[in-house]
Amino acid sequence: MSQEITNTAPIGVFDSGVGGLTVAREIMRQLPNENIVYFGDTARVPYGSKSKDNIIRFSRQIIRFLKTKNVKAVVIACNTASALALETVQKETDLPILGVIVPGARAAVQETRNNCIGIVGTEATIRSETYNKEIHKLNPDIKVIGKPCPLFVPLVEEGFAKHSITKEVIDIYLSEMKKTDIDTMILGCTHYPLLRSSIREYFGESVHIVNPAYETAMDLKKVLAENGMANPSEGEASYEFYVSDAAEKFTKFADSILPYDVTTTKEVNIEEY
Amino acid sequence: MSQEITNTAPIGVFDSGVGGLTVAREIMRQLPNENIVYFGDTARVPYGSKSKDNIIRFSRQIIRFLKTKNVKAVVIACNTASALALETVQKETDLPILGVIVPGARAAVQETRNNCIGIVGTEATIRSETYNKEIHKLNPDIKVIGKPCPLFVPLVEEGFAKHSITKEVIDIYLSEMKKTDIDTMILGCTHYPLLRSSIREYFGESVHIVNPAYETAMDLKKVLAENGMANPSEGEASYEFYVSDAAEKFTKFADSILPYDVTTTKEVNIEEY
Repeated sequence: MSQEITNTAPIGVFDSGVGGLTVAREIMRQLPNENIVYFGDTARVPYGSKSKDNIIRFSRQIIRFLKTKNVKAVVIACNTASALALETVQKETDLPILGVIVPGARAAVQETRNNCIGIVGTEATIRSETYNKEIHKLNPDIKVIGKPCPLFVPLVEEGFAKHSITKEVIDIYLSEMKKTDIDTMILGCTHYPLLRSSIREYFGESVHIVNPAYETAMDLKKVLAENGMANPSEGEASYEFYVSDAAEKFTKFADSILPYDVTTTKEVNIEEY
Repeated sequence: MSQEITNTAPIGVFDSGVGGLTVAREIMRQLPNENIVYFGDTARVPYGSKSKDNIIRFSRQIIRFLKTKNVKAVVIACNTASALALETVQKETDLPILGVIVPGARAAVQETRNNCIGIVGTEATIRSETYNKEIHKLNPDIKVIGKPCPLFVPLVEEGFAKHSITKEVIDIYLSEMKKTDIDTMILGCTHYPLLRSSIREYFGESVHIVNPAYETAMDLKKVLAENGMANPSEGEASYEFYVSDAAEKFTKFADSILPYDVTTTKEVNIEEY
């Protein structure tokens, strides 16, 4: 299949649901020539409480689906899948595959002044310690403090991002971390940028917040350039959206957070891939 | 297959995850002779935000799996699947299949004095209006007030059932309903009995709380008796637990809410059924 892939082929971007749209948005901003095929696994969301074996199986199915769309590269825009499946699927696939963790870890290492970094994410992401490993590859002296915040995703999905309840939940999860010396905090879940202002307010100006989405788009740009795969055409890029369930709800959410009109999302039975 | 089924065959009970254990527990109490095969779809939990088509597909797969265990009857111990899939799978299956909604609706109709019933449940259950339809079959004059409470499931699953945050969320979701005349409230999601004391406290003694699990076990007893299918053997019943993901976490939860030691849960790739 790889011989058919041209530079005008799309980038495949996937996530467990809508969260990865914060990554797609960064790619749209930084690589405006690139076409995108986005897949949100809304039939099996959330990934954060599920096992490594299943996250790998889900990721394989989605990559098989994206290959039917002739993508030239894949971005795993989901921290949990990046933490648990990236290494495995990279070995099996003849396309460049990027996750969000390596770029996020690198940005945090560059940012910290006192070598003390905090990470918030799903249970699976924190338990995997993948951020810790990537940070320690760059600087083994950095102290890393991780904290799973499993209620953040449902709070965002239910529209409570700006609610006082969410501020209380932030305090419950993060009061211990606030007492530590961290000067840098990684938002290790693609939903969390939507809580950014509340988290920033809670920690104050002394803690720098890292959103891996921005760094991931930068990395993608570099990978495409290095492989001579950047799209040279300057016409309007095309964006396609696929989900495994509830296309209409997804379309509304996508339309509200992307800087252009999202009108259709197609539904796919991902278990057939 | 049906000719192989004997009276000693197990009852199949399924749910999107752990919530249906509140129904399994009632069956164990009221039908101590019956063997049970429980399936929790932990790879695809939660169901409450997903579409009817997918809930039907998931339910069909699970029933096919339960049939490989030679069950003599199936209990859909999940309100969302009972609301969206029961009617379809009943037509396709040569076994008695019971949901939790008809028994819950009947109990509420018997209970109400002023013909005003409240229902709390997932988004999908409330949107389906299945409780409303079942209540109106019994008494078309009853006023039914439904309210989706999507954060209740993650709050229970994350161990916040007794936390003050949950009391605040109860107030956010149910303050409107508290101002109405309801004298009866259906806990229309199998997780919600675990919030029962907080909900009772919020509404006070004047509102009667209906837990459909109890009524469902009563109905099952009746169906088995009517079909001459009750298990006559008085030895110790056997209980088997299967999930589609994260067996260990499930075992811990099951062990904490069931009145006997749960030591093993087996993992099944449900997408193969």
